[in-house]
Amino acid sequence: MAKYVYSFEEGNKSMKELLGGKGANLAEMTSLGIHVPPGFTITTEVCDQYHRNGKTLSPEVIDQISEYLDELQVKMNKTLGNKDDPLLVSVRSGAADSMPGMMDTVLNLGLNDESVQGLANKTVNQRFAWDAYRRFIQMFGHVVMEIDSRLFESVLKKIKEAKGVKYDSGLDKEDLKKVVEKFKQVVHAERGESFPQDPRKQLEMSIKAVFNSWHNERATLYRKLYDIRGLLGTAVNVQSMVFGNTGESSATGVCFTRNPATGENKFYGEFLVNAQGEDVVAGIRTPDPISKLNEIMPDAYQELLAIRKKLENHFRDMQDMEFTIEEGHLFMLQTRNGKRTAESSLRIAVEMVEEGLLTKKEAILRIDPNQLDQLMHKHIDKDAVPKAISIAKGLPASPGAAVGEIVFDAHEADALANDGRKVILVRTETSPEDLIGMNAAQGILTSRGGMTSHAAVVARGMGKCCVAGCGDIRIDEEKETLSAAGLTLKKGDYITLDGSTGNVYEGRLPLQDPELSDNFDRIMEWADEFRTLQIRTNADTPHDAANAIRFGAQGIGLCRTEHMFFEGPRIRAMREMILAGSVEERKKALARLLPYQKEDFKGIFKVMDGLPVTIRLLDPPLHEFLPREEEEISVIAEEMRVTPELIKTKIEELYEQNPMLGHRGCRLGITYPEITEMQARAIFEAAIEITNHGYTVLPEVMIPLVGNINEFIHQKKVVVATANAVMEESGTRINYLIGTMIEVPRGALTADVIAREAEFFSFGTNDLTQMTLGFSRDDAGKFVPAYINLGILDHDPFQVLDRNGVGQLIKIAIDKGRSSRPDIKMGICGEHGGEPSSIEFYHEAGLDYVSCSPFRVPIARVAAAQAALKNQK
Amino acid sequence: MAKYVYSFEEGNKSMKELLGGKGANLAEMTSLGIHVPPGFTITTEVCDQYHRNGKTLSPEVIDQISEYLDELQVKMNKTLGNKDDPLLVSVRSGAADSMPGMMDTVLNLGLNDESVQGLANKTVNQRFAWDAYRRFIQMFGHVVMEIDSRLFESVLKKIKEAKGVKYDSGLDKEDLKKVVEKFKQVVHAERGESFPQDPRKQLEMSIKAVFNSWHNERATLYRKLYDIRGLLGTAVNVQSMVFGNTGESSATGVCFTRNPATGENKFYGEFLVNAQGEDVVAGIRTPDPISKLNEIMPDAYQELLAIRKKLENHFRDMQDMEFTIEEGHLFMLQTRNGKRTAESSLRIAVEMVEEGLLTKKEAILRIDPNQLDQLMHKHIDKDAVPKAISIAKGLPASPGAAVGEIVFDAHEADALANDGRKVILVRTETSPEDLIGMNAAQGILTSRGGMTSHAAVVARGMGKCCVAGCGDIRIDEEKETLSAAGLTLKKGDYITLDGSTGNVYEGRLPLQDPELSDNFDRIMEWADEFRTLQIRTNADTPHDAANAIRFGAQGIGLCRTEHMFFEGPRIRAMREMILAGSVEERKKALARLLPYQKEDFKGIFKVMDGLPVTIRLLDPPLHEFLPREEEEISVIAEEMRVTPELIKTKIEELYEQNPMLGHRGCRLGITYPEITEMQARAIFEAAIEITNHGYTVLPEVMIPLVGNINEFIHQKKVVVATANAVMEESGTRINYLIGTMIEVPRGALTADVIAREAEFFSFGTNDLTQMTLGFSRDDAGKFVPAYINLGILDHDPFQVLDRNGVGQLIKIAIDKGRSSRPDIKMGICGEHGGEPSSIEFYHEAGLDYVSCSPFRVPIARVAAAQAALKNQK
Repeated sequence: MAKYVYSFEEGNKSMKELLGGKGANLAEMTSLGIHVPPGFTITTEVCDQYHRNGKTLSPEVIDQISEYLDELQVKMNKTLGNKDDPLLVSVRSGAADSMPGMMDTVLNLGLNDESVQGLANKTVNQRFAWDAYRRFIQMFGHVVMEIDSRLFESVLKKIKEAKGVKYDSGLDKEDLKKVVEKFKQVVHAERGESFPQDPRKQLEMSIKAVFNSWHNERATLYRKLYDIRGLLGTAVNVQSMVFGNTGESSATGVCFTRNPATGENKFYGEFLVNAQGEDVVAGIRTPDPISKLNEIMPDAYQELLAIRKKLENHFRDMQDMEFTIEEGHLFMLQTRNGKRTAESSLRIAVEMVEEGLLTKKEAILRIDPNQLDQLMHKHIDKDAVPKAISIAKGLPASPGAAVGEIVFDAHEADALANDGRKVILVRTETSPEDLIGMNAAQGILTSRGGMTSHAAVVARGMGKCCVAGCGDIRIDEEKETLSAAGLTLKKGDYITLDGSTGNVYEGRLPLQDPELSDNFDRIMEWADEFRTLQIRTNADTPHDAANAIRFGAQGIGLCRTEHMFFEGPRIRAMREMILAGSVEERKKALARLLPYQKEDFKGIFKVMDGLPVTIRLLDPPLHEFLPREEEEISVIAEEMRVTPELIKTKIEELYEQNPMLGHRGCRLGITYPEITEMQARAIFEAAIEITNHGYTVLPEVMIPLVGNINEFIHQKKVVVATANAVMEESGTRINYLIGTMIEVPRGALTADVIAREAEFFSFGTNDLTQMTLGFSRDDAGKFVPAYINLGILDHDPFQVLDRNGVGQLIKIAIDKGRSSRPDIKMGICGEHGGEPSSIEFYHEAGLDYVSCSPFRVPIARVAAAQAALKNQK
Repeated sequence: MAKYVYSFEEGNKSMKELLGGKGANLAEMTSLGIHVPPGFTITTEVCDQYHRNGKTLSPEVIDQISEYLDELQVKMNKTLGNKDDPLLVSVRSGAADSMPGMMDTVLNLGLNDESVQGLANKTVNQRFAWDAYRRFIQMFGHVVMEIDSRLFESVLKKIKEAKGVKYDSGLDKEDLKKVVEKFKQVVHAERGESFPQDPRKQLEMSIKAVFNSWHNERATLYRKLYDIRGLLGTAVNVQSMVFGNTGESSATGVCFTRNPATGENKFYGEFLVNAQGEDVVAGIRTPDPISKLNEIMPDAYQELLAIRKKLENHFRDMQDMEFTIEEGHLFMLQTRNGKRTAESSLRIAVEMVEEGLLTKKEAILRIDPNQLDQLMHKHIDKDAVPKAISIAKGLPASPGAAVGEIVFDAHEADALANDGRKVILVRTETSPEDLIGMNAAQGILTSRGGMTSHAAVVARGMGKCCVAGCGDIRIDEEKETLSAAGLTLKKGDYITLDGSTGNVYEGRLPLQDPELSDNFDRIMEWADEFRTLQIRTNADTPHDAANAIRFGAQGIGLCRTEHMFFEGPRIRAMREMILAGSVEERKKALARLLPYQKEDFKGIFKVMDGLPVTIRLLDPPLHEFLPREEEEISVIAEEMRVTPELIKTKIEELYEQNPMLGHRGCRLGITYPEITEMQARAIFEAAIEITNHGYTVLPEVMIPLVGNINEFIHQKKVVVATANAVMEESGTRINYLIGTMIEVPRGALTADVIAREAEFFSFGTNDLTQMTLGFSRDDAGKFVPAYINLGILDHDPFQVLDRNGVGQLIKIAIDKGRSSRPDIKMGICGEHGGEPSSIEFYHEAGLDYVSCSPFRVPIARVAAAQAALKNQK
C-alpha cells in the first residue's frame, strides 16, 4: 500500500517534493537531535489526490492519518480531546517551495468544551486554556468554516469595551469564557451547526482546509509571481502544540543565522514574550531584537545560538528559523533557507567562501541573478538628503528608495500603476490580500510590524523598497490621510521612502544610481572567471553606455539611433525629412540631422573606447515621429510653415493597419536610401574624428529587419560606398563590421544566404517572438494572461524566451549562418538578453554574446556564469 | 572573338535567348526555304553589353555589324544610300519573349536626299519614294531622335488642309517633297542639327534606339505584367525592306494559322492592299479579312496557305505570321506562336491532339493555366440581352462581358480603378501608352482598328473584354463624350460591352456566369488523368460550393464561418455577443446565432454530399464586427438599447495596435470557449440532420491560428465534448476529423507535436507569409512595389508563394507532421492555392490537396497536372 504519511522520524531534508520544505526540514532537525515537537506529515501526493478526487480524502489516507495520530498520542502520552491532559496539535501547510503566509494554518486543535478544562487543569492556568480555546474557535471558524473573521473581532471588541480594557490581556478567564460562548453562537448563526466538538473531525476538516488553500487566490498569485510551477500541492504537518503564551517564561520568535537585509554574519531575529508565533509574523505587537533574549532567558538563548551554528553548517546556507520557548524549554518549529536581499545574498556568498563553507562555484550558483536588480535600484540623491524633511522614521525593512503618490488601498494601487502612475502603498499592516498592490507599488510603508512582518518579508522578496513598523505615522484609512510630524498628507500627495534607513520624506526627492559593494565586485569577478558568453549592453547615449561599462559591459550590442531623433531641434529636422516632397528636400533635412547624429556617435565612441559598438540603422515606422494630437499638429504646422492639412495628409498616408509588419526597418532604408547614407556618414565621420583623437573605435553597422538577402545587399552597398567616401575624404581608414539583425523568421530561415554577406548576426528576439508566435507585444495582454492561467503558456514569451519556437529558429539560424561563414559573430539584443533562463539557452546554443540594458549587465554576468557551470556538470 | 551578329542563314529556332524570338524564327523560316527578306540579327548579349558599357557599342560589335551589312549588300546587290538602286532596311526589336509593340522599330532606313532619287528611279514611282522618305524621317525623328511626333503630324495636316484633301493618299509627289522639306526643318529646329544623311550613322543610331527601348516605361511595365524576367535584353533585326505599299499589286497583312479568338481550325487574318505593316497593326485603316486575298491575289494566297500548313506542322503550334506582298511576291516577315484566348487555347489543344499533332501530355503542358480565368468570366445575362438596347456594334475583339463607367483617359481609368470603381476605357484607338488604363479597366472599347489592332491583341492577352473598331460610335476625347445611335453619353455614364458579339449597350446589364465548352471538359478530364493533387475550394455559401463543384472541386478546403455572421439579424446577435457583460449574456447571444450557423452548414453539407468540408472556426478579431462610424454607432446603440458610450468603450477595449498579431483565431475560442462550443454544436447538429436525410457528410473541424499544442488541445477538448454531447442527444454518430491551420511560424516549427493531436493540417499561406516575412498584407503596398522594381523581390509574395522562406517552413511542417502522424492529411488554403507556380511547389512538397476560390479550380486542375507531368520528366 502507498505511504501517505511520514512521522518526523521517517523523513529527511531530501524529501522536499513529497513532504514539503517545512516537513522535510522538521524531519531533518529531528534526526539532528534538535528539539522539535513531535508530529507527522501528510504528503503532497495526498493533496494532488484530494483535488483529483473531487476534494475527498481516500479511506487509506484517513486510516494512515489515524494510525500516525495514535502513534503521536502514545509518544506524547496525551490524547486529543482528553478532559484531563489533552493533546493539542497545529495543522500547517508546507509546499516544496516556501510560500510564506499564503496558505492556511490551524493552531490549538483538539480543544473542545471538555478538553479546555483538561488544559486548564494540567497547566493550572484557566485563563490560558480559555484564551487558547477562543483563539482556536476564531481561527478554525475563519480558516476552516470560512466565517468572516470580523464577526469574531467585533464580539471581542464589544466585550473589551464593556469591561473598559484596551488589550486582550485585560480579559480574565471569565471574560474569555464569555468570548468562547459568543464565538460558538457566531458559528451556529453563520453555519447553522454547532462548533465541532469531535477533535478527529476538527482534524480532518482542518487538513482539507489546508489542501483547499493550495488553490486560493493569493497562493495562486504568489506561485505566478515567483514562477513556482510543477508542484503536486502542499503537504500538511500535524504537530503537537507547544505554547509561547503560557506566561513570562514562555516566548516565541523568528530568527536568521545571518542578517537577511545586510548579510552580516551576526545572529538576527525578533521575539515576543508570552505570545504565539502568529503574533510575531502578523506584526500586531512590535517584537524585541533577539539579542535581548540573552538578558531574559540566557539558557534558551545559548541553546538557540548553538542551534544556529549547527543548522547553518548542516544546510550550508543562511537559515530562517522559528522557535517557541514553553516554560523555559526551547522548541524549533521550522528552519529553511532564508530569503534575503541581494546585498545580503552577495555578502553571505562571499563570506561563506571565505569561511570555507562554500566553493566559488557553489557561491555563484547560489545567487539568484534576478535579485541583483535590487542593487541596481536607485537611492535618494545624497545631496538632497540633508535638506529633505524626514517626517517619520520606521524600520529599514527592504532597501532602495521610492517616490510616489500615497495610496491606501491595494487594488487602487494596482489600478493607478496600470495607468502608469507611481504609487507608494501605505497600510497599517499588510496581509497576503495586499500582494497585488505591493507588486504594483514603487514602495511600501506600514505603521505596524517588524523586520519579519509580512510587509517586510514580501517587499524584500520583490526587491521593493519598504519602510515597516513606522509608529511615527498615523494612518486614517477611511479618510485616506496620513499624519506625521504635524503634517497631514492625503491620497495622491507625494512621499519618498528610504528603505535603507527607514526614513519617510514629504514630497519627491531626487533619486540616484547606486554604488556597488566590494562583495558585488568579488561575485562579478568570480562570475567572469566561469562564464564564456560576452555581455554587451543596449545603450543609446554616452550616459547609459558609461553606466553599462561600470556594470561590466564589454561593448554595445544595440545602439538604437532613432531615440536620437526625438530631442529638441532634431525632431523638427526629422519631421521636415518625413514631410519632404522630393529626394532633394529630404536630403536637405537629413543634412541638418547629420551633425546631431555625428555628435551622438562621437560621445558613445569615446565612452566605449576599445569596445565594439553595434549601431542599428533607423528602425521604427516614420509615423512615430509625427505628432498625434490636433493641437500639437497646429503648433508644428505653424512652426514648420506648412498647413496642418499637409501634416494630416502625411499622417494618413503613413497610417498602417499593422505597423509592426509594415514600412519600417531596412524597408525604410531601401525606399529612402538617403537616410541610410546620412546615418552611415554620421557613423564614419564620428569614428574617424574620434580615432584621430587617439581612441579605438570598433563600429558594427547593423541593418534591421532583414528577411531577404537582397535587402541586406542593397543596404550594405549604400553603407560601404558611404564608408569608402568618408574614409577617402579624411584619409583615415576604420575597421568596421557590417551585419544584420535576425528578427524576421525568414531571416533566420535563410541565414545561410544572408551570412554570405553579413559579418555578424544579432538576434532581435522581441520582433522574432512577435512574428514567430504571431503575438503583437502591444496587444498580447488581451490573451497572454489567460493563456498563462490556463497553462497554455508557462511564461510570457516576451519575458522568457520561447525555446521550442523562437529558440528553434535561433538554432536554425546559428547552424545555417555558421555553415556559410564559420567565424560569424552572433549575439542577441532583445529584452531576453538580460533574462537568466534565456541566457542559459543562449549559452547552450553557442552565441558569442548577449546584450541587455545597463542595469541588467550584472544579472547577465552571473546568469552566464551559472549557465557555464551548469553545463560543466 | 565573340560572335555578336548572325545572318538569317546562321540561326535557328532554338536560339531564341540569343537572337530573340523574331530573329530565331526568321532564321528558321529561311532554312525551311520560305521567302524571307535577307538580313541579320544583333544578339541580345550585345544589348546587355551596350547597357553595361554606358550605352555604347563596342568596336568589335560595330565591326561585325559592318561586315554583315556588307554581306547583305552583296546578297541583295544593292548598297545603302545608293543614288541609283539603294538598299533599304528595317531595324526591329525582338526579345526571347514576345513583347508586341513595346519596343521601337525603324523602317525604310537608308533613305536620304540622294537615295530617295535612286528609289524613285528604280521603282519608277516618285510618289512612293518620297512617301517612304517622309515616313522614314517621321519615324526616325520620333523613335531615334525623340522628337514629339505631333510636330510631324501637324505639318502633314497643314499641307493636307492647304490642298483640301483628307487622306495621305491625296498627296502627290510634289506635296510629299514639300512634306520632307518641312520635316527636315522640324528636325533641325528641334535638335539643332540636320537630319542624318549617312545611312551607316542612321543604322547605328537606330540600333541604339532599339536597345534603349528595352528599358522604356511601357516595355518595363509589360515585362512586369507578364512576369517576363531573366532576359538579357532585346536582339535587333536588320532586314532588307520589302514594300507592301508600292501599289495595288502589293499588300501587307497579319494572319493566324487558326482563329486566335475561337481556336477554330480555319485560316484567319487581315490584310491591307498598298500599305505598310504598321498600318494594319495601328488600326488606322480597317483591313480586309484574309479570305478576300484569294479574290485579289490568288497566287499569293495559295502560297500563304501552303506556308500556313508548313509552319504549323513545323512548330506544332498555332502561328501568328506577318507577311508582305511586294509586286505580287510573297515575303514572310515574322512567325511566332500566336497569342490566343483561353477558349481558343483549349480548342486548339484538343483539336491538335485529335489531329495527332500533339499528345495529351503535350496538350496539357501547352495550356497557360492562368488564362483559363477568362473562361470563368461572366457574360451578359441571356434573358437581359433581348430587352437591352445595343447602341453600337464593333468587332468582338476579346470575349467576356464588362460593365463600367466610361473613361476616356488611361491614367484616369487607373486612378478610378484604384478607388474601387469599375470603368470601361473608351479610346479612338489604343497605343502602348494606354497599357496602364487597359490593365485597370473592366473592358476596352475602340472606334478604330481591327481584330489584330493593339487594343484587340493586348485585351486578349489580358483576358479582358474588348470591342474594337466600333465605327458606329463617335468619340470626342476633348469633351469626353461618346455618341452613338443618337445618344450622347458622357464620362461617368455606364455602358456594358459584350466582347463575344461586339455589342455595346447603354447602362448596366446584369452579367452571368459562363458555361463551359466541351473542349474545356476534355482538357479537364486529361488534366485529372495526370494530376495527383486533389483540388478543393474555398467556399462559404452553398452557392459558391455548387459553383466549385461544377468546376471540379473535390471538397471544401476552407469554409470561413465568420462571413456567416454579417448578414441581417445575425450581425445583431453577434454584436450582442461581443457586448455581453458576462458569460451568461454571451451564451444567450450565441444561442441566437446557433440556428443561423446550423442552417448555413446544412446548406453546404447538402451541396457537398459525399465530399469533405473543412470548417474553420471563428478567426477575425471581434472588433471587425462592430460599427466604425459615429452615426452607425448611434443607430445600433438605439437598436440594441444600449448607450453609444458602451459601444464606443467596447470598440476602444477591442482596439489593437497590430490586429493581425492580436486577439483572433483560436485565441478567441480559448478566451471565449462558449463561441467554439456554439460553432461545434452548429456543425454537428447540421451534420446529423443532413445525414439523417440520406446525405453523406464529412466534416473536418479546423482550429485557426494554432502556434502551440496546448491551444489545440484546449479547443479540441471543447469540440470533442460538444460533438459527443450532440451525438448522444441525437443517437446518430458522425465521422469527422479535427485539425488545424498551420499559419503561425511556430505552428510549422512545432508541427511534430501538433500532429500528435491534429488529424489534418491546412497551410494558411496568407498569414504564414505575413508572419514569416513580417509583411502586413494591408500595408506591404508601401514598399513591395519598390522591392519588385529594385529586384529585391521577384514577385509579390502574397501572389506567388515565397518558396525559400514560407516554402521552407511548409516543408519543415510536412516533415515534422508526418514524423509523428504518417497518414496526416495536408493541404493548403491560402490565396496561393490557385496560383500555378505555387501549385507546382505544393505538388513537389507532397501535399494532398490545394484549395482555392471556385473560379480558380480549373486553373488548379491544369496546374496540378502540369506539375505532375513536369516531375515525371
